[in-house]
Amino acid sequence: MQIRPARPVYIYSWGSVVGKKEHEGPLGELFDGYDSTDLFGTETFEKAESEMQKRALGLAMAKGGFLPEDIDCLLAGDLVNQCISSTYGLLSYKLPYIGLFGACSTAAEGLILSALLAGAYCRRCINVTSSHYCTAERQFRFPLEYGGQRPPTAQWTVTGSGAFVCTAEPADLLRLDGQYVPQITAVLPGIAVDGGINDANNMGAAMAPAAMDTLLRYFAENKSLEGIDLILTGDLGREGSAILADLMWSHGMDISSRLADCGKMIFRLDDRKTDVHAGGSGCGCSAVVLAADILENIRQGRLEKVLFVGTGALMNAMALYQGQSIPGIAHLVEITRTELPQEKVR
Amino acid sequence: MQIRPARPVYIYSWGSVVGKKEHEGPLGELFDGYDSTDLFGTETFEKAESEMQKRALGLAMAKGGFLPEDIDCLLAGDLVNQCISSTYGLLSYKLPYIGLFGACSTAAEGLILSALLAGAYCRRCINVTSSHYCTAERQFRFPLEYGGQRPPTAQWTVTGSGAFVCTAEPADLLRLDGQYVPQITAVLPGIAVDGGINDANNMGAAMAPAAMDTLLRYFAENKSLEGIDLILTGDLGREGSAILADLMWSHGMDISSRLADCGKMIFRLDDRKTDVHAGGSGCGCSAVVLAADILENIRQGRLEKVLFVGTGALMNAMALYQGQSIPGIAHLVEITRTELPQEKVR
Repeated sequence: MQIRPARPVYIYSWGSVVGKKEHEGPLGELFDGYDSTDLFGTETFEKAESEMQKRALGLAMAKGGFLPEDIDCLLAGDLVNQCISSTYGLLSYKLPYIGLFGACSTAAEGLILSALLAGAYCRRCINVTSSHYCTAERQFRFPLEYGGQRPPTAQWTVTGSGAFVCTAEPADLLRLDGQYVPQITAVLPGIAVDGGINDANNMGAAMAPAAMDTLLRYFAENKSLEGIDLILTGDLGREGSAILADLMWSHGMDISSRLADCGKMIFRLDDRKTDVHAGGSGCGCSAVVLAADILENIRQGRLEKVLFVGTGALMNAMALYQGQSIPGIAHLVEITRTELPQEKVR
Repeated sequence: MQIRPARPVYIYSWGSVVGKKEHEGPLGELFDGYDSTDLFGTETFEKAESEMQKRALGLAMAKGGFLPEDIDCLLAGDLVNQCISSTYGLLSYKLPYIGLFGACSTAAEGLILSALLAGAYCRRCINVTSSHYCTAERQFRFPLEYGGQRPPTAQWTVTGSGAFVCTAEPADLLRLDGQYVPQITAVLPGIAVDGGINDANNMGAAMAPAAMDTLLRYFAENKSLEGIDLILTGDLGREGSAILADLMWSHGMDISSRLADCGKMIFRLDDRKTDVHAGGSGCGCSAVVLAADILENIRQGRLEKVLFVGTGALMNAMALYQGQSIPGIAHLVEITRTELPQEKVR
């Protein structure tokens, strides 16, 4: 069941920070900041990931002209065990903190809760998430030094962090007078779906059935593709994206011309030097592409309606050792370009 | 800032499942179910923890007479890396799923979001969390076989899972005609607080400053202790509980006569055979004590107003190796006994 915020909620400002490889990718110039060492001035990759969250959050607040006391609730999470990138990264802001775990779907999960809380209870919510190639490899796969070979379906965890301020405050809306603003018009939380995939190097295939499930539930309520510019999945990659298009086609919907995937957009997949196989992945992947590319395009009037479908693979390394397969989840956020004429706001 | 649900939200039904040691404890007879092997019919402790969540959720729904289609949103999380106890345990229910990470405060975090979502958007929300002594030891400390000695401040992770159905549906309220019902009258999300503790065997001390921070913010808005029967912390244990009472006293509030801690209640702390040192801990600790003991006492009229303060230590094993200290967090849920006269509901 899709839910609409009880009053209009807008994504007011956002921030994105990435690593070296992401900065060198096709969207490189769009991100707010990057670090060519991937260490962000710290001595471990885990601390670097925390530092990215801290910076992305600071950027999103600063670009909106907000101080911590202007924010009522912070929602955050990441891929590192017990979500410590968020914990340590966000300590200094001293904000009421709701910790999330949605694997790579965390940006969408955070936007869902931000929109619903700002729609009924809070002035403004901020949500942030991150991933880091080196923390993810250490934790989920092999030590970097091992130099293991990767199959073509493997994805490359994006080093990056994205943050979003959602507001329903009348005072903020006045400041947006006459501008295009991304509004969260509906949300649809995902249902975990287990397609039976147990290969940690084929996350796209593990997540595609969940994305299909969410999209079918969305279109059961909103009958048509009409007016939707983009169905933006989080990190299905080349493999998962193709599977999703096929699955939807088998249910009578051809979404292929509208389908885009953050994991495919952030790297040059066909560049052998980039060497990311099926594309980018991770919590940071969808967060930074949504922030730096999609929301800016909405603000500048080039996109009108986007279904942001954050995809996540809900597994850990031990579960695979114990023979479990990898369930996927996909959270949907319907983002619509709105023009705020001053009289409407007042 | 405390938040009140937009319309009255009640905790309608709940379920609790525990392990052998918890069943043998002072509250043993109150829990809905237990397994004397701690394996719950599975072959690994991780799968056992998933099975506990599945059973607790099933019990909470069954006791309320609900089927999965009656529930609009499921909120869950646990301590195992990437929260897989929730993922695998809850797959079969096919419910829209919001994954949480609040360490041991997850039961309170889930109740906060359940109350706010049911208060404005959903018919009913269900939240569930768990912990298991053996999965926690394997992941955070040492292999069980190692038999390491524990200092007096160490706590014993509770094997248990608790689930709660929150409702704002008029039809449900009619069924509660004339009964005492626990109502969630306010919530206050916690702020992460780092007191500088870096000893994983002294979680109580790490979490106590966060509990103080939350309580001081609560009492800044609700001036007095008057009318509050119980301040129920999640798992501060003997050490953390004493520290919290001292910290509050140093701020001019004597809460000691009203203070209780789920981690102290669930085991016989002074029984050398029980051997739990400073008390119980874990996501499951506060969830099962709240469900089996406190909510039942509210329903039976023996308690009127309880501040449930779920405490959590936001760390992982690697962060400690990297020299980080352990931030705590404490989420507050104000639960008030309400009598629902039929005419009021209609």
